[in-house]
Amino acid sequence: MKNTAVIGYGGQGAWHTEQIKKSDVVSLAGVYDIVPEKRELAQSRGIHTYSSVEELLADKKVDIVVIATPNDSHKELCIRALEAGKNVICEKPVMLSSNDLEDVLDVARETGMHFTAHQNRRYDVDFLAIKGIINSGEIGPAIAIESRIHGSRGIPSDWRGKKEYGGGMLYDWGIHLIDQVMQLFPEDNISKVFCTEQHTTNNEVDDGFKLELLFNSGITAHIEVGTLNFIAMPRFYLQCQNGSALITNWQQKTKVVHCKYWNEKEVLPIQTAAGITKTMAPRDEITTEAYEIDIPKSDVHDFYRNFVKSIDGLEPQYVTHEESLQALRIIETAFKSIQEKQVVDFDNALELNSQIRIRIKK
Amino acid sequence: MKNTAVIGYGGQGAWHTEQIKKSDVVSLAGVYDIVPEKRELAQSRGIHTYSSVEELLADKKVDIVVIATPNDSHKELCIRALEAGKNVICEKPVMLSSNDLEDVLDVARETGMHFTAHQNRRYDVDFLAIKGIINSGEIGPAIAIESRIHGSRGIPSDWRGKKEYGGGMLYDWGIHLIDQVMQLFPEDNISKVFCTEQHTTNNEVDDGFKLELLFNSGITAHIEVGTLNFIAMPRFYLQCQNGSALITNWQQKTKVVHCKYWNEKEVLPIQTAAGITKTMAPRDEITTEAYEIDIPKSDVHDFYRNFVKSIDGLEPQYVTHEESLQALRIIETAFKSIQEKQVVDFDNALELNSQIRIRIKK
Repeated sequence: MKNTAVIGYGGQGAWHTEQIKKSDVVSLAGVYDIVPEKRELAQSRGIHTYSSVEELLADKKVDIVVIATPNDSHKELCIRALEAGKNVICEKPVMLSSNDLEDVLDVARETGMHFTAHQNRRYDVDFLAIKGIINSGEIGPAIAIESRIHGSRGIPSDWRGKKEYGGGMLYDWGIHLIDQVMQLFPEDNISKVFCTEQHTTNNEVDDGFKLELLFNSGITAHIEVGTLNFIAMPRFYLQCQNGSALITNWQQKTKVVHCKYWNEKEVLPIQTAAGITKTMAPRDEITTEAYEIDIPKSDVHDFYRNFVKSIDGLEPQYVTHEESLQALRIIETAFKSIQEKQVVDFDNALELNSQIRIRIKK
Repeated sequence: MKNTAVIGYGGQGAWHTEQIKKSDVVSLAGVYDIVPEKRELAQSRGIHTYSSVEELLADKKVDIVVIATPNDSHKELCIRALEAGKNVICEKPVMLSSNDLEDVLDVARETGMHFTAHQNRRYDVDFLAIKGIINSGEIGPAIAIESRIHGSRGIPSDWRGKKEYGGGMLYDWGIHLIDQVMQLFPEDNISKVFCTEQHTTNNEVDDGFKLELLFNSGITAHIEVGTLNFIAMPRFYLQCQNGSALITNWQQKTKVVHCKYWNEKEVLPIQTAAGITKTMAPRDEITTEAYEIDIPKSDVHDFYRNFVKSIDGLEPQYVTHEESLQALRIIETAFKSIQEKQVVDFDNALELNSQIRIRIKK
């Protein structure tokens, strides 16, 4: 069991302490939060608290530090923890820029400590279901994926709404959904990025965005986060060559329609609203089959298990540095696209990345 | 009752004859189709047939000619009918380019005959429901509209799949959905266009597309047609400042969620899949109300009624020349965007249009 301390006892920091308490590979050494009331809250829950970051990092019993603070403070805290000889799990967005992440990775390399972004939503059951369908090939090669998350209470009124703290939905939910889509097509490369943002409840940062990723293979990904959507559109929609899949939300099974035979008998036009259509007439039940896929099993504790095993040299780290860098570059390209109101090529970023990849690996 | 003849007795031409038979303002003079078997079919249904376009256009009893032929033949047939002293209803896409339409409008002006595109889907009940919500303002000003039509049998194997006949889904369903969206925001102007196309079952023309229209006001429109979507996404999704609306398909009532009060009591984070979220937690039932809107009444015969009244100088034509020109310009800009893989400004097109508008009106 590796001793783990958590910096930041907000919503996500508290979530980590609860997981760590139940973990079979990590144990909770204690927490620190800059706000005294948060430390008192942790104490009232029987958690040991440190009085400062210094005290926490000086605790020789601590093997792993979890950083769960506002986004703008990740860089400094990660570097301090690595330099104090701690392995680091940093909340997402792991940094505010790929340059910042490169700096932190330099320190990780110099100190020999392990560093990972906490991309916990790779364990989301809805994502795992979609990934399972794509990997099984049961409805053919993917053509387009759509990933949406819709809320209706605007961006939270805390630091998530402030630019200086690294607020905004691209950094908040965007980094998750981008990371997931990259996991779906690991062999593919993104060639173009187009992004538009919304400012419906907040002028400082995006409180919603629509992001199009065009892959070299021709696959397209639509990633969308909204915080003023009182009706949520489906969480995932997958268009494949021989079928489609839809997940309404993470609590629902995946609906699949598989096209078994392309040709049908004579198609009769159907009446729709104010006209007829042959093109949009529904298929019969002979050429297609509809079925549901059960919600997959998933265990977020696998994240800690993998990180501990990677520290012990037993398996490769699940969230790689290359993946974390690439996700941040996509966000940077999305910001550029928003500013220029244009489609932005992703080629240069990929080239740059391959150089960095070599640098990291040596 | 104005005597009406139909050129082209395919699916859409036959639909017109059925409507005309039931009309209270137009009566069926007869049909012509270039294919003898189609003429025989019409005869077998008790419809008078002409042996040639010449004979049809020479029939002095005919007041209105409906053109329901493949798209590439519209221009020549429209000009011949106008020059023969007939008023013309032309199927959509009314022409393959705005330049072609200008040429035809010149002939209409010279001959003094009336000319209209058949944008029958302005009478679609799903469209009318969405238009009603926007115009009522009941859920506040619009932010984004999404209009999708999904089929799963590819592009039809007839002329609709051939480039030389003006095939493809942008011309086929696209022109309808573009025309509808323009009707939703008549005071607004489009500033930018981005479009991607699909070639899943056809390499010659688009068998599906995704079109983003950015309006000067900030409103965005997503228009999508798919012919390889075995599960259909909702027909309409409307995001407004104080609520959202969704129409699954034209046979369903409109679902609306209206946000009555913005502020809620303390929001508790909810568990989702592999993490918690406060942002995406659902709202309570105190601040929002959910309701359904009945399917509106609609009558496609109003299209013929309006055209006859406009011929008689009793009311303005419902589908204006400016609207038909603008819809074709949007399609032209979409094709440019597909080719350049870029966002394309719509400013110049609008400027050009205002000049043409003046020319038409004088």
